[in-house]
Amino acid sequence: MGSKSDWPTMKNAVDMLEQFGVPYEVKVVSAHRTPDLMFEYAQTAEARGLQVIIAGAGGAAHLPGMVAAKTIVPVLGVPVQSRALSGEDSLLSIVQMPGGIPVGTLAIGDAGAKNAGILASQMVGTHIPAVREAVRAFREAQTQFVLDNPDPRD
Amino acid sequence: MGSKSDWPTMKNAVDMLEQFGVPYEVKVVSAHRTPDLMFEYAQTAEARGLQVIIAGAGGAAHLPGMVAAKTIVPVLGVPVQSRALSGEDSLLSIVQMPGGIPVGTLAIGDAGAKNAGILASQMVGTHIPAVREAVRAFREAQTQFVLDNPDPRD
Amino acid sequence: MGSKSDWPTMKNAVDMLEQFGVPYEVKVVSAHRTPDLMFEYAQTAEARGLQVIIAGAGGAAHLPGMVAAKTIVPVLGVPVQSRALSGEDSLLSIVQMPGGIPVGTLAIGDAGAKNAGILASQMVGTHIPAVREAVRAFREAQTQFVLDNPDPRD
Amino acid sequence: MGSKSDWPTMKNAVDMLEQFGVPYEVKVVSAHRTPDLMFEYAQTAEARGLQVIIAGAGGAAHLPGMVAAKTIVPVLGVPVQSRALSGEDSLLSIVQMPGGIPVGTLAIGDAGAKNAGILASQMVGTHIPAVREAVRAFREAQTQFVLDNPDPRD
Amino acid sequence: MGSKSDWPTMKNAVDMLEQFGVPYEVKVVSAHRTPDLMFEYAQTAEARGLQVIIAGAGGAAHLPGMVAAKTIVPVLGVPVQSRALSGEDSLLSIVQMPGGIPVGTLAIGDAGAKNAGILASQMVGTHIPAVREAVRAFREAQTQFVLDNPDPRD
Amino acid sequence: MGSKSDWPTMKNAVDMLEQFGVPYEVKVVSAHRTPDLMFEYAQTAEARGLQVIIAGAGGAAHLPGMVAAKTIVPVLGVPVQSRALSGEDSLLSIVQMPGGIPVGTLAIGDAGAKNAGILASQMVGTHIPAVREAVRAFREAQTQFVLDNPDPRD
Amino acid sequence: MGSKSDWPTMKNAVDMLEQFGVPYEVKVVSAHRTPDLMFEYAQTAEARGLQVIIAGAGGAAHLPGMVAAKTIVPVLGVPVQSRALSGEDSLLSIVQMPGGIPVGTLAIGDAGAKNAGILASQMVGTHIPAVREAVRAFREAQTQFVLDNPDPRD
Amino acid sequence: MGSKSDWPTMKNAVDMLEQFGVPYEVKVVSAHRTPDLMFEYAQTAEARGLQVIIAGAGGAAHLPGMVAAKTIVPVLGVPVQSRALSGEDSLLSIVQMPGGIPVGTLAIGDAGAKNAGILASQMVGTHIPAVREAVRAFREAQTQFVLDNPDPRD
Repeated sequence: MGSKSDWPTMKNAVDMLEQFGVPYEVKVVSAHRTPDLMFEYAQTAEARGLQVIIAGAGGAAHLPGMVAAKTIVPVLGVPVQSRALSGEDSLLSIVQMPGGIPVGTLAIGDAGAKNAGILASQMVGTHIPAVREAVRAFREAQTQFVLDNPDPRD
Repeated sequence: MGSKSDWPTMKNAVDMLEQFGVPYEVKVVSAHRTPDLMFEYAQTAEARGLQVIIAGAGGAAHLPGMVAAKTIVPVLGVPVQSRALSGEDSLLSIVQMPGGIPVGTLAIGDAGAKNAGILASQMVGTHIPAVREAVRAFREAQTQFVLDNPDPRD
Repeated sequence: MGSKSDWPTMKNAVDMLEQFGVPYEVKVVSAHRTPDLMFEYAQTAEARGLQVIIAGAGGAAHLPGMVAAKTIVPVLGVPVQSRALSGEDSLLSIVQMPGGIPVGTLAIGDAGAKNAGILASQMVGTHIPAVREAVRAFREAQTQFVLDNPDPRD
Repeated sequence: MGSKSDWPTMKNAVDMLEQFGVPYEVKVVSAHRTPDLMFEYAQTAEARGLQVIIAGAGGAAHLPGMVAAKTIVPVLGVPVQSRALSGEDSLLSIVQMPGGIPVGTLAIGDAGAKNAGILASQMVGTHIPAVREAVRAFREAQTQFVLDNPDPRD
Repeated sequence: MGSKSDWPTMKNAVDMLEQFGVPYEVKVVSAHRTPDLMFEYAQTAEARGLQVIIAGAGGAAHLPGMVAAKTIVPVLGVPVQSRALSGEDSLLSIVQMPGGIPVGTLAIGDAGAKNAGILASQMVGTHIPAVREAVRAFREAQTQFVLDNPDPRD
Repeated sequence: MGSKSDWPTMKNAVDMLEQFGVPYEVKVVSAHRTPDLMFEYAQTAEARGLQVIIAGAGGAAHLPGMVAAKTIVPVLGVPVQSRALSGEDSLLSIVQMPGGIPVGTLAIGDAGAKNAGILASQMVGTHIPAVREAVRAFREAQTQFVLDNPDPRD
Repeated sequence: MGSKSDWPTMKNAVDMLEQFGVPYEVKVVSAHRTPDLMFEYAQTAEARGLQVIIAGAGGAAHLPGMVAAKTIVPVLGVPVQSRALSGEDSLLSIVQMPGGIPVGTLAIGDAGAKNAGILASQMVGTHIPAVREAVRAFREAQTQFVLDNPDPRD
Repeated sequence: MGSKSDWPTMKNAVDMLEQFGVPYEVKVVSAHRTPDLMFEYAQTAEARGLQVIIAGAGGAAHLPGMVAAKTIVPVLGVPVQSRALSGEDSLLSIVQMPGGIPVGTLAIGDAGAKNAGILASQMVGTHIPAVREAVRAFREAQTQFVLDNPDPRD
């Protein structure tokens, strides 16, 4: 993530990865304040065995796209809700990538971070049955919860 | 894709998959006009061995999110440019998914479709070296093209 | 409605139905978490005698449009106010339906839910005089209230 | 509709009503240029036996809401695409009605007008089997068309 | 104004009229809840000697435009800040009037209401020297206040 | 107006003033390219007997607000449709004036310019019966035109 | 800055100038309330030796553009966050200047003001080594801070 | 600039630099396709004696902000008009930089590029009298042109 202040949002991604038993690392890497670290992080990602990178940032959010520019490891982007424009700037800065360098973008804020964790696990799960089954169980449980609580007035 | 009219956009995804040697199928499946087909398509995707689904749609674009609701195969969404609102409605309808059901969303229009094809290939490439190397070659060629053409006035 | 958290908004619809003596049922049915339940709910609506369905949801709000895709019972949609984008995403996801599958969309939030209850009652009232007269009385009372309180400084 | 220039859009509603055998009348009634006519039209709608009113307008589109203020016949609103703001102004002017006076709003432009015709027919169809079956047949045909044309490259 | 809840905003207009010695009346007239009263109010405005009408409303704000449709007395519109969309809907519903029926629109919220009071007084002041000089004195005082307080840190 | 390129839009205001027999002058005065001329123009407006100023500009449209800052003659603003943002920037730059300096703002583009001409004439007409009656005749004719052409299919 | 209320935002610019040892002056100069002072301030800026002007304003923010119209000293603009539209109006009013009169625009609010102070110092620093090195040290420290705190959970 | 397709826009900056006699270089450097070249370009800019960098890009425009992250040479950003969102995405991606790394942003499209050329020249001109006087002459000529052509009907 681009800043320590993004942690309350990005924590939702980590919670999902933990739940599904997906190994992960958490690091503040700022596109604007530590560009060299960002490049090194992205450039070595494949060799270090990363299978997916989740990058969260707000405002003129360049982290996801710049990481994607330096690796062919799939990159997911989470637009963190910004102060003045509520994350509309974060969203457009992440999702509107030019043809050639993709970032798979999730929703603004907590829901997006949670979903980045799930989508990363789904991707990992295509080859690791234990992860796939953990995601399936989570999905079934969330379905069952709604089925068990049909009346919002309870 | 949700409609035959999305083909000129979605063709850009197919072009990438072909270039990288990723097997694919192309089908019109409308969330609103053929909801049962959509559910069946999504529900059987995992068993049929699909490793990623690219869904493109415009306006109140429900196809990517509803497919994602019916499978744990990773789903990528492409907002097709709409007539009145230029795809802003398509983008928000696809990307703003609630926590629990992720859709990795790409840019509006042709660039987004092209990038969906690339990102899908990157995902597949994490386990298939030939695809990974094809993506790497494409990426290097696109870099080289810019390096070889530094002067826009030529 | 798509989630228990939509209840404070959707309660406004229920209040109106109760006031006009229109029988109703209230249920959480999530497009994304319980897609099969949603399809079954929509598919059996006509046979169960429902004359109108009010569906409320927020963010990438697919519930109203997907219910409409599975029934010819008229569907009204209520955009629930979302956290980051204040319901602009909910509104566009509901109202921008493609030609062929209509959703009659109301305003974002409480006012929209209240109006969904009134519009549903107006629809029912075209054939049930008691409901029609209850709506008429409500409308006249709300007019009279303004006429009786012309000075905002009181 | 509010202006003769809205006809190319609103014609899509009429086409649907004709297809479903729903009797209708077509009239230019401008909220701003013929306010008295508008009030008379709305006020006498119930007595003349109208069961639903479709009102289309663009820009600061006041026609649907003002008609709704003068009748308890259900009103559907169609935002006509405007020149500068592409119908975003039309949409907000129609859909954001205050609690108490509902307008069921459809999508911007042709698709919205078509859907207004379908939704009106669905409403009428709750009590007239022939209309209901005509809508059902239309819906099934549109589903079948997609099923029969699954390949967009054909 | 369209609702008693608009008073905290519209009070800013009244404060200005009082300061400039412009006679005025204050009334809640709702376009949607009391359409007949609105029409009667607008239609009799000229005969009652009103020289300018200030109309404030929020959301799908139809009051200013509909009053303007029923009189040739100049109408000024104040977009009241709305809950979900912060007055963007109010602004577009008021300012985007079609050619033929003008509404002079001010800023969203308190500043706009204050300015409606000033602009109305400027209009009245073109023929009543006492009002004109009162506006001039106010403008000079507000200039002098800034000149006397150049340092924001004081 | 701020630029010669605004003339096709602003001509609509002139056409109305001519139709109502209101004397006028037309001049290009640029806030950004001729700031001193703008200040002189605004500062001498009252002494030269101007009763209302119509200012049209596009993009970061500062002309209406700056003219208003230099005179107590009422100022009307017309947002000219801009290239990239379709006049949304022009509108916000003109209408969102701070409390203290009002600009009565009309719609974006041709309709707004036409309405500026009409509103200016309504203002002048409060004291010159011939202008008032010319506006009334225009308004009645435009009403009659709609009444005489109720069928958009003709 | 245009108003004393802009000080909490603009203070961020001053903090940077102080940190880099750049001499500065702070003054409230309102485009709308003190237009003559603004013109005099801008017109004499070059002769007084100013090398860059930072202008902050909100809403229909005309100060930066109008100062730029009266001097060839480079002008930087800071959009202050506005009440209703969160600074979107401020941003567009400042950045969308017509060709011929540039304003270098920074982000909405505190971050933009801080960056205006930094960018002004970078500009001054191109000719004053002490300032340039102070900026460099600040930049290196901010980089080092991220490098020293890589784990957001600490 | 980020792509050869940006040249028709960015050419407007070059035209200004040529007119003012400011030496310059023109190069395509893509943040996403040639990230290493971009970093090298930015990192060596100061040593090569560049006094200001103009960076133009569209969509998720990361070039200006990333160049700014790698140098303390002042960076100006030009949002190139994008296909789907007309440059609103380009603008927000460039201007909404976090505190610490400034980009002085100009208007969307041709006017912004032209103004980047002028602002860069104003910056250079603070220390090179010939450039300063060339800018002054240009500004005076553009003023004189408006003064000589006051009537838009000519």
